[in-house]
Parts: sequence; C-alpha cells; structure tokens
Amino acid sequence: MSFERVAIIGLGLLGGSIGLAVREYLGEIETTGYDRDPATRTRAAARGLVGTVCETASEAVRGADLVIFCVPPGAMADAATEIAGTLPEGALVSDVGSCKQSVAEALATALPNNPVIPAHPVAGTENSGPDAGFATLFRNRWCIVTPPEQTNLVLLSELVTFWEALGANVEIMDARHHDLVLAVTSHLPHLIAYTIVGTASDLEEVTRSEVIKYSAGGFRDFTRIAASDPTMWRDVFLSNKDAVLEMLQRFTEDLTALQRAIRVGDGDALFAQFERTRAIRRSIIAEGQDDARPDFGRSDHDAG
Amino acid sequence: MSFERVAIIGLGLLGGSIGLAVREYLGEIETTGYDRDPATRTRAAARGLVGTVCETASEAVRGADLVIFCVPPGAMADAATEIAGTLPEGALVSDVGSCKQSVAEALATALPNNPVIPAHPVAGTENSGPDAGFATLFRNRWCIVTPPEQTNLVLLSELVTFWEALGANVEIMDARHHDLVLAVTSHLPHLIAYTIVGTASDLEEVTRSEVIKYSAGGFRDFTRIAASDPTMWRDVFLSNKDAVLEMLQRFTEDLTALQRAIRVGDGDALFAQFERTRAIRRSIIAEGQDDARPDFGRSDHDAG
Repeated sequence: MSFERVAIIGLGLLGGSIGLAVREYLGEIETTGYDRDPATRTRAAARGLVGTVCETASEAVRGADLVIFCVPPGAMADAATEIAGTLPEGALVSDVGSCKQSVAEALATALPNNPVIPAHPVAGTENSGPDAGFATLFRNRWCIVTPPEQTNLVLLSELVTFWEALGANVEIMDARHHDLVLAVTSHLPHLIAYTIVGTASDLEEVTRSEVIKYSAGGFRDFTRIAASDPTMWRDVFLSNKDAVLEMLQRFTEDLTALQRAIRVGDGDALFAQFERTRAIRRSIIAEGQDDARPDFGRSDHDAG
Repeated sequence: MSFERVAIIGLGLLGGSIGLAVREYLGEIETTGYDRDPATRTRAAARGLVGTVCETASEAVRGADLVIFCVPPGAMADAATEIAGTLPEGALVSDVGSCKQSVAEALATALPNNPVIPAHPVAGTENSGPDAGFATLFRNRWCIVTPPEQTNLVLLSELVTFWEALGANVEIMDARHHDLVLAVTSHLPHLIAYTIVGTASDLEEVTRSEVIKYSAGGFRDFTRIAASDPTMWRDVFLSNKDAVLEMLQRFTEDLTALQRAIRVGDGDALFAQFERTRAIRRSIIAEGQDDARPDFGRSDHDAG
C-alpha cells in the first residue's frame, strides 16, 4: 500500500467505518481524523475510529498523503477550503459523497493544486454518527470511483487498491453517469420513503399508533431508509437535482398508469406489472446485494 | 380450545403457516386442508402442513367447526361457493385476506347459513407457496378481526383465543376502518414498491445490471415487497380500490411538494420533512414490529 498517512474529515458512519476498516485490514497505515462537532470527536477518540483525533482539520491533514472527506455533499466545499493551506502538495483528495459531479467540482475548486479523485462506496445503514460505523461495512459492497479526465493513472490505481483492501469491489465510472445511476438506485428510493412515511404521519382517519402497530404489512420496510441522516439527504437532493427530478418524473408516470389500472379495474395490467418485478429481486439476491432469508431473517429473530 | 377440526382452504404461505402453527401450539386440533393446485397439495402433504390434505374442498370441510379461507381476495367467492353444500351448519367461517369489506361480503353471500367472522393476520414474507410457511409466522404480529354487526360474542371470543394461541396479538376493528389502515400501512407501500422496481427496469440510460449492482443504496429495500405474490396483490388493489386511491392521492400531493422543494432548492423544507420521519422508525422498533439491528442484521450476515 502506497499511502502512509490517511486523514479522514468527518467521523460519522462512513468516516468512522473507513477508520475502523483501515485499522483492521491496513494496519500499517497511520490514520488521523477530524469532525467539526466536539462531541463526535470525543466519541471517535473513545471508540478509536482513527489513530489520532485532531482538534482542527488542518492538524488532521498535516503530513497526509490521502485525505478523504466524509461530510455531507453540501459541506464539502467549506471542509476543503479549511485545509487548503495545510494539505501537503501532491496529497490525493477523495471523498465518499453520494453525488459525484457537484462534489468533484467543489473539491477541485477549493483545492486546485492537489489531485482529486472522487469515490462513492455504495454502502451504509440507516444509522449515523460516530457510534454507527463498523469495520466490515464495505465488504462485498461496490465502491464507484469517478476519476476526472486526465487523472494520474498511478494515483487512480492506488485509490482502487485502497478500497479493495477495505473489502469493496471497485468500479470506475463517469461522474455524470454515476449521478444518474444513483438517482434511481438510491436517491429516488429515499425520496419516496421519506414521502410515504410523512404521508402516513399526517392522516386524520388513521392514527399514528395504528400506522406503527400494523407496519409489518409493508410500511416498515420504508421506515428504515427514511430514518437516514436528514442533513446528508437534503444535500443529496440539492446536489443531484437534475437526475433526481428526471427519475421522479418517470416514476410518477408509471405510478399514474397503475393508478388508472386500479381505477378502471384492469386486473391484467396490474398482474403483468407485479409479475415482472420478481425477477429483479432474484438477481439482487444472486449477486449477493441482499439477504435471501425471508423477511431478511426478521422472522428467525422474532422466533428466538 | 373449542374448535376440534379446522379446515384450511388454500395452502400457500398463510394457510401453510396456520397449519404448522396449529400443530405446534394447538396439537389437539385436527387439521384438514385443500388447495386447487395439485402440485401445492403434493408439497403440502410432504411438508405435513395439515393433518390431512384432501382432494376436494368439500371433503376438507366435512365435519369442520372452523374453516379458514387462505386464498387471494378475488378467489374467496368461488372457494366459498364450492363448499356451500358440505360445510356443517354452525361451523365458523373466517379468512386471512388483506381487504375486509369485500371479503366479508363475498363470504356472507356464498355461505348465508353460517356465521362469518373475517380476520387478517398482519404477517407475511415476500415468499409464497406451500414451501414458504413456518409455524412462528404469527408470533408477536397483530391479527385484526373484523366482526360484522350482530356477531355471536362466544364465537368471536373463540376465534380470538385461536389466534392468540398461534402467537398473535388480536385487535377488533370495524372492516371499513381496517381497509383504510391497511391501505396506508400495506397496500400503498406495495403499490409504490412495484412501481419503482418497474421504473428502474425500464430505463434506457441506466442498465438493469447497474440497478441490481448498486441496489444496496436503498433500492433493494423496495424489491423485497415487490417480489410478493402478484395474484394476491392484483386482487388486493381491485378489492380495496377506494381506500387505496385515497391514500395514493395524498401520497402524490406530498411527493409533489417535495419535488417542488428540490426544484426551487428549498433545503429547509427538505430537512424539515426528513427530520420528522425518524421518530416513526424508533416507535416501530420500540413496539417490536421491526428489527433494530442496522441493516436488519444484513451486515452481520455479510461479514460472516
């Protein structure tokens, strides 16, 4: 491994997991970290998320050859500006943001003298904060790296090796295409989940306690992702606006078609739609991106 | 337990689970069963889902004092008509359908001389068929019983005791209110999940293999419920049309508001919406209706 000292800016779920994974799988690398929230720094030090928790971002990046920004997309520009004077020349700048075009631009603008290669590990849980991370978060998950044009291929290969060492499968992708793919596989699902959980909270005829009680009928599956970090998701939707609005438009058209089928009682149209969606589930399980146990093994757990 | 012989019509996930649960927790009750699919009957016999798998529905209900219809809502009327000549006088008729007004009417019309008390165990997995059931499916899950006016209270109490013996918590509810509650906690979530999985399959710019690969970003949570039995769900939407369309209308309004917030860049509105949906998740976990392990324990599983 060519990196000797990795600085992690932002010590929440992702930053903390990177720190723990580096300690687990790349023990020879020194890690430093910083979070602007003092309480997070205290917890990060207590859990040993990085070797040294620093009091300032500048201190954290001193001597680093790789700095990874693990802050919400909207906070990237400020966080990068904060270290502009201290970051060693030649140190590689990367991140874990869910939108890549806007983040790439923010980092390149703030740190014009350093190489920037954005990355996005497609991994996470609904929990956030310094207590949420764990070393195996990236195992068997994809990490999408979106190198700008004219990226130094040696640096790129070093970043790929780093992520592979943490257990991820790496894919190289154009930033624009990344933003489109993630709009459908991640951003739109989150938007819809947030919406339906909100809708269910606002009914007059059905109480909130009834919604909670009978959530096992399907609703609860949406609440998991609707419990994700609000700041991060606000930034995602603002940063990847065009792709999200495009996907949302398509979703709305499809929903309208099903709505019409229900209204006119077109059972064949409903059946045809419901039948074809099963295949995707099977593929996701076959590729190891989800758990095949019925109910994700919830039933086993309940029965225990 | 006052029931001595329970007949189960339909031996899929729900019917099979009832049979297995009766054997486990109410061993003194004799069970018979029928499914119109011969292959399902064969598997049901091999797994011992009921004591006796019968070749006709009439044969299955002979001598029964409780018959439970576990077929899709749209198949209830035909299934009930099939046993109208054989069902013993006084035998209680019940079911497990996800819509209660339409099913109550269908059963009462087909079997005017028997008491009918519909029920709906709010439990399930995305799997269907005779191999999907298990004895603990109903444990710590709610079973909603919707007695029509002038129901015999002794019979009602016996049905409640039956479901409690299988591990369920029973709630008595008006059928109309049930259909509204389930429209939001179950039917709308399924409709939306089916829609988004369909939308994602039809994109030109993002391939299906990319959707599958990066589904861990949120999309996979929707695919589980979009893999549910198409016939049953077609029937649910046709049977509970009014309540589903009402909930869908509210959802669409809320989604439009978020869409506008994204378009105009109103981060405060987005944050406010995303912040308030976390509380519901916490309540669902506190009430034991979901698993608090991050990622439903998927991460533990992956790491193993």
